[in-house]
Amino acid sequence: MSHNVAQKLIASHLVEGEMTPGNEIGLTVDQTLTQDATGTMVMLELEAMGLDRIKTDLSVQYVDHNLLQTDEKNPDDHLFLQSAAQRFGLWFSKPGNGVSHPVHQSRFGKPGVTMIGSDSHTCAAGALGMLAIGVGGLEVAMAMAGQPLYVAMPEIWGVELTGELPDWVSAKDVILEMLRRHGVKGGVGRIIEYHGPGLASLTAMDRHVIANMGAELGATATVFPADDAVREYLEAVGRADDFTEILADAGAEYDVTEHIDLSSLVPLIAKPSSPGNVVPVSEVENEDVFQVVVGSSANPGLRDFAVVGEILDGRQAHQQVSVDVNPTSREVLADLIAGGWLTSLVKAGARIHQSGCMGCIGMGQAPATGRNSLRTMPRNFPGRSGTEEDAVWLCSPETAAAAALTGRITDPRTLEHSLGIRYTRPVMPERYSVNTDMLQAPLPPEEALGVELVKGPNIASLPDFEPLPDHLDLPVLLKMPDNVSTDEIMPAGSRVLPFRSNIPKIAEFSFTRIDPTYPERAKDAAGGHAVVAGENYGQGSSREHAVIAPRYLGLRVVVAKSFARIHWQNLANFGILALEFEEPAGYDSVTLGDTVVLDGLRDALENGTPISATLNGEPLKLRHHLSSRQAAMVLAGGRIPYTVAQTA
Amino acid sequence: MSHNVAQKLIASHLVEGEMTPGNEIGLTVDQTLTQDATGTMVMLELEAMGLDRIKTDLSVQYVDHNLLQTDEKNPDDHLFLQSAAQRFGLWFSKPGNGVSHPVHQSRFGKPGVTMIGSDSHTCAAGALGMLAIGVGGLEVAMAMAGQPLYVAMPEIWGVELTGELPDWVSAKDVILEMLRRHGVKGGVGRIIEYHGPGLASLTAMDRHVIANMGAELGATATVFPADDAVREYLEAVGRADDFTEILADAGAEYDVTEHIDLSSLVPLIAKPSSPGNVVPVSEVENEDVFQVVVGSSANPGLRDFAVVGEILDGRQAHQQVSVDVNPTSREVLADLIAGGWLTSLVKAGARIHQSGCMGCIGMGQAPATGRNSLRTMPRNFPGRSGTEEDAVWLCSPETAAAAALTGRITDPRTLEHSLGIRYTRPVMPERYSVNTDMLQAPLPPEEALGVELVKGPNIASLPDFEPLPDHLDLPVLLKMPDNVSTDEIMPAGSRVLPFRSNIPKIAEFSFTRIDPTYPERAKDAAGGHAVVAGENYGQGSSREHAVIAPRYLGLRVVVAKSFARIHWQNLANFGILALEFEEPAGYDSVTLGDTVVLDGLRDALENGTPISATLNGEPLKLRHHLSSRQAAMVLAGGRIPYTVAQTA
Repeated sequence: MSHNVAQKLIASHLVEGEMTPGNEIGLTVDQTLTQDATGTMVMLELEAMGLDRIKTDLSVQYVDHNLLQTDEKNPDDHLFLQSAAQRFGLWFSKPGNGVSHPVHQSRFGKPGVTMIGSDSHTCAAGALGMLAIGVGGLEVAMAMAGQPLYVAMPEIWGVELTGELPDWVSAKDVILEMLRRHGVKGGVGRIIEYHGPGLASLTAMDRHVIANMGAELGATATVFPADDAVREYLEAVGRADDFTEILADAGAEYDVTEHIDLSSLVPLIAKPSSPGNVVPVSEVENEDVFQVVVGSSANPGLRDFAVVGEILDGRQAHQQVSVDVNPTSREVLADLIAGGWLTSLVKAGARIHQSGCMGCIGMGQAPATGRNSLRTMPRNFPGRSGTEEDAVWLCSPETAAAAALTGRITDPRTLEHSLGIRYTRPVMPERYSVNTDMLQAPLPPEEALGVELVKGPNIASLPDFEPLPDHLDLPVLLKMPDNVSTDEIMPAGSRVLPFRSNIPKIAEFSFTRIDPTYPERAKDAAGGHAVVAGENYGQGSSREHAVIAPRYLGLRVVVAKSFARIHWQNLANFGILALEFEEPAGYDSVTLGDTVVLDGLRDALENGTPISATLNGEPLKLRHHLSSRQAAMVLAGGRIPYTVAQTA
Repeated sequence: MSHNVAQKLIASHLVEGEMTPGNEIGLTVDQTLTQDATGTMVMLELEAMGLDRIKTDLSVQYVDHNLLQTDEKNPDDHLFLQSAAQRFGLWFSKPGNGVSHPVHQSRFGKPGVTMIGSDSHTCAAGALGMLAIGVGGLEVAMAMAGQPLYVAMPEIWGVELTGELPDWVSAKDVILEMLRRHGVKGGVGRIIEYHGPGLASLTAMDRHVIANMGAELGATATVFPADDAVREYLEAVGRADDFTEILADAGAEYDVTEHIDLSSLVPLIAKPSSPGNVVPVSEVENEDVFQVVVGSSANPGLRDFAVVGEILDGRQAHQQVSVDVNPTSREVLADLIAGGWLTSLVKAGARIHQSGCMGCIGMGQAPATGRNSLRTMPRNFPGRSGTEEDAVWLCSPETAAAAALTGRITDPRTLEHSLGIRYTRPVMPERYSVNTDMLQAPLPPEEALGVELVKGPNIASLPDFEPLPDHLDLPVLLKMPDNVSTDEIMPAGSRVLPFRSNIPKIAEFSFTRIDPTYPERAKDAAGGHAVVAGENYGQGSSREHAVIAPRYLGLRVVVAKSFARIHWQNLANFGILALEFEEPAGYDSVTLGDTVVLDGLRDALENGTPISATLNGEPLKLRHHLSSRQAAMVLAGGRIPYTVAQTA
């Protein structure tokens, strides 16, 4: 039988279950990736499990998120992570080395390999023909402990590409086109696999852009074949030997099909405040722009900075615009210097920041109140920039550069006529800079066992969570609309992230973007509480603090119309019961302060009997999609107590 | 009669008073400099005075302090400052253009000119034969309104330099030697004037380093002659025409004299947590180092980065050290690229940050708890780094580079033997990069009048302050030791600085480093209160928030053994009475919670009669040094109500 690339990657790592869409499968995990915002918790989980040494082929701890050190918490965490990486046998990427996804692709990416990461953009590695999935931190900890990854078998969504991108249109516009067509939940339960003749004109780094923002479609993963473009890339980063060809078989089929003619694409932009609000740039021209930010995992390649350098070369940024540039890594920075592009950017007035995620995760670069900011980043959820009333737009480097020059939203295709700028495709070096000195290799096992974890004063142990009771009688403390993101459940940004290693403290920020009184009310509801939400609840970042912190405040049950995948798994991992309304009217019938009563939960979860639920005494139809493994975890209070009990 | 350089500069600008040390003199002000942390208040003061257009030859508003935009407050302020510069006729230096002092020297510095600035390191401009003085923001506002600067005529302290600096020793070690000899109040009431044959080997940027940290000695200003080194500098920045030779007359004399043999100097370092704790590096070798920060106004020249690039070239920073580099300006950054030094730094593992003050003012780069951080910066007051329990050391670029390589405090002279590194003096370009596109010129007057101030939601008007009562009966809410800095009175850093344009809000941070209960207790003491301090009260930064905020909370009187100059002037400007103990026993007799009663203040301040004071009913001998102009200001409630009444 013919297989597509996704099926080949899954079949070669399958240890449990059948490859039928919707069915839970278990996959072996070859590599893991953690970054610092989620990684401190993962390391505390490894500690809680008493692990001696990781069992994956390769795991890497990156520091790319919390780089603004406004007090001791972030640098204390960096030292903790460095010590934990040494203790457990991980690679460690020092602060300043760069953004995890492109650095990982460049140093460790390999066709045919599976990887999970506690960062929702882990999927970017699909560019090399890997199966790479963003998950909660605990999933990563379990993989490092040697356990398979459990996931519902996704549908495979084949997107056939034909044609070639026109001038002034680039890879970002391809993924924005997908978001324009399908919105932020178009990819839920699916792996997107790109194929077709249009692939030939897309480099591995172009594909990285497209794979990265598959997360914004809600997709489980994005997969590209490992073809000549991947071979060329691995040669350019000095790892030709790591190439293996992986192509879809002739006649391979897809569960869902789609077609994009690259030559028909135009510059696109996502309006505030969702990556799904995509329109052609030409429809929103002339809006005033005060900030342009270039960088992040969504446009991380040398090309994506170089093209801005080419456009700005010899020109000056508009006087009202702050142009902020976040080089992806020090390797990209070195290549930007060597190519002359950094000089062009500096002379044009750009502010060059340290290598890392920076403004993409609200670490600096917040825009002024209500002023438009154009960014080459993947996300523009409300407030994610750090500014409460922000107006963030997502676009390609070309569109960003055009606004930097004109101070207005500008279709970059008009620059040729208005400013006499010809589109130049920057010529990439035959070999990229390779510099591994800031990537510290794992210590030998005997040496590693002697390493002590370096815990600053703000690093606290994980709280223990008790099992799920058979009977629950809970007030509904929040009723939320569709598409609530984890940025709204647990804000990131410089005010909150420094507390990521301290659950009692970070819990004070839970849901405060939605209702500042929530933490207080949750503490008052001593017997626990429930919250209610619409569709696609928990979209966005994979941060498990969005689960652990409300759990710490007594959240036992979330009832929603539907859930985003990673968040749904995180809920189960930490013993919160995720239930769905069987009928839309169920959602409509709930009012803030209502009481939900659940009975016979153990029977329902163990034996699959219907859930007995009432709302203010009236019957309420609810269902769950937990596998029996997940149901057992939730009953046990979460995956850590479940695993400890299993192995005891 | 022969004059030294300082006397020539003063005489040519004298409009009031006699040049006798200690006597108040009035000087015309040619230029002003404001930065963003203090400048928003200055612009609100210009607005409060109803000024139409500045009357100085040239005034520049820089944005170099609050560059970390973690929410909307900093970017909102940037837009406010840009609009205010346009409205009142100032130049505006955009965020990312660079640190005020070196940028100002490079673009606008001119021998023979007077300048005041609302930044304590304004004195750096003395490197070019200017008289440049750091003052409170209100002084700057008054100068822009055309008023003279009033200051006590300083003593002139002639420091004769002979010899030449050895290898591995640089300008920073000269000023550290001054601090080693004289401590943080050695320069109070003095202008330091360097002279002698040793000058010939010090470039204008070397002199900038030395003049900058004159502030740490408490000096009113630092002055160098405008000689061939200044001529060469002005040629290198493309402004040869702005050169005028200004040399001391033959036989010029000094009030105080000093000698430094440059060839006898060794690498020096200031230990935590005062710039006055200076020892030879060789005495503290082998202490573990976790962070090295290169940059700031104290070592801003291209050379000061290039020399680090030379030392790190082809090598790798120690694995436990974060090497942070803050390029001074985008011009310096462009030259670092052109010279190949940026590549050396990046490859060695440095984190390259945006151009600006950054970690020097606690805007990021906080070190881990209790871990040693070596910095080429001017200050290491406790907590200024952002980390409560910090351990910050101040040193030369050479000493910083040595620690970056070894991970320990290392005398850089040992590198030749231990690592085979030969000392290379980096060759400076004949012409520095000149790029003025981020310096926006003043608008023509008619256009300027039409500009509206852009005020974000966090920018609040100045509060009004009432006149000083004739009788005061005040509880003593704080008793402080010697050398309390304005960083302790009003912390800076990313948590506090965003509120600098909002007095009621920033007041909540007053004195909280010394006693977190102060704001609450001050508000409880409804009739006002006093505080007591030791020697050199109010050293450090010129920030006038350290006066306005406690004044807002009811502070009416500060009694100290002695005052730092700028803070003392700020107190008078905002109507707080600064009194000195006549006898040390007076300080000893005070206990927290005591009551100070002052009587007949109007008579005492207007007619110079002794101050009638009691402490818990016992007589207390106090005096003041206010000029009659300052006394009238304090009686009126401060300089703004005083000036408004004068001109009404």
